[in-house]
Amino acid sequence: MARWEGNTRGRLERAALDLFREQGYDGTTVAQIAQRANLTERSFYRWFADKREVLFGDDDLEACYLPVIQAAPDGLAALPTLLTAFASTPQVLRPRDFLIERAAVIAASPALRERELIKMVTLAEKLVAALVRRGHDEQTAQLAADVGLAVLRSATRRWILGDDSDFAVLLATARQDLLRVAVM
Amino acid sequence: MARWEGNTRGRLERAALDLFREQGYDGTTVAQIAQRANLTERSFYRWFADKREVLFGDDDLEACYLPVIQAAPDGLAALPTLLTAFASTPQVLRPRDFLIERAAVIAASPALRERELIKMVTLAEKLVAALVRRGHDEQTAQLAADVGLAVLRSATRRWILGDDSDFAVLLATARQDLLRVAVM
Repeated sequence: MARWEGNTRGRLERAALDLFREQGYDGTTVAQIAQRANLTERSFYRWFADKREVLFGDDDLEACYLPVIQAAPDGLAALPTLLTAFASTPQVLRPRDFLIERAAVIAASPALRERELIKMVTLAEKLVAALVRRGHDEQTAQLAADVGLAVLRSATRRWILGDDSDFAVLLATARQDLLRVAVM
Repeated sequence: MARWEGNTRGRLERAALDLFREQGYDGTTVAQIAQRANLTERSFYRWFADKREVLFGDDDLEACYLPVIQAAPDGLAALPTLLTAFASTPQVLRPRDFLIERAAVIAASPALRERELIKMVTLAEKLVAALVRRGHDEQTAQLAADVGLAVLRSATRRWILGDDSDFAVLLATARQDLLRVAVM
């Protein structure tokens, strides 16, 4: 069992995902999630604002990325700045099986899908703002954030599909793919 | 007055946008939109499924893009295939002032924002499927769709900010920006 599943938050996430798969997202209550995890509802709300948030624990991605962006060497171009930040996170934050199941549950629920989209857009906006603070012009910052997230998604897809390389290596591969796509 | 505003659909879009700006999206009813446009509610529902759809008339973008993608020359790479399709649309489909006001109204309403995000993701999925049908592998197709949409957004931003070049020229400029961002 991966280490995160041993903690309270991980147990709640695992219980929620299992219940969403068994009986659907709409048909599952916070009380059921807490019970399945052998925890109280109060514990649940210590970690998550509501039921929808339980699959979005990686919201704190930006808390990982933004300090790295801020600390990047002066003069580093926009995309390498973002990719450095993406490579610095403690790998992908959940076990692969969990992420695969999670993706299926999200795809099946419009409410979860909207939550994920808004999460991505919010992250993109924060990345743009961080790049602008470093002196990049707005147009470059927006394009770099869009393209950087495209590279991140590509690397994550490779990992989910079974490529066990270090995440920095997957990002480098995805960047090569980007160059190929952009130049051809 | 741009030509599209003379037709029923354009009048409904214009009336809706004005009302959303004056009194908010949530506070506006379909009946009010129809009245402002001197049309009946029945006319409204002939064009739009509900209030939220009235600002998303360019949903038919994919109806413009997909045939162009299908008809692209054999062997054309993924990104140029998409950019050819984007350049083939009848320019940007609404007057600039309308699009600027529309963007502000959407940004102010979570419901409209969600609708726009889902629209973009649905478009991306259809572009990926169209590229895979042309023989591109799934990874390349997904990356090219993400990157192509980043280029499209960049070109659209330039246009909204006042660049009156032909849209194909704006796309070419955005593609140069992409190369700069990707290579540096």
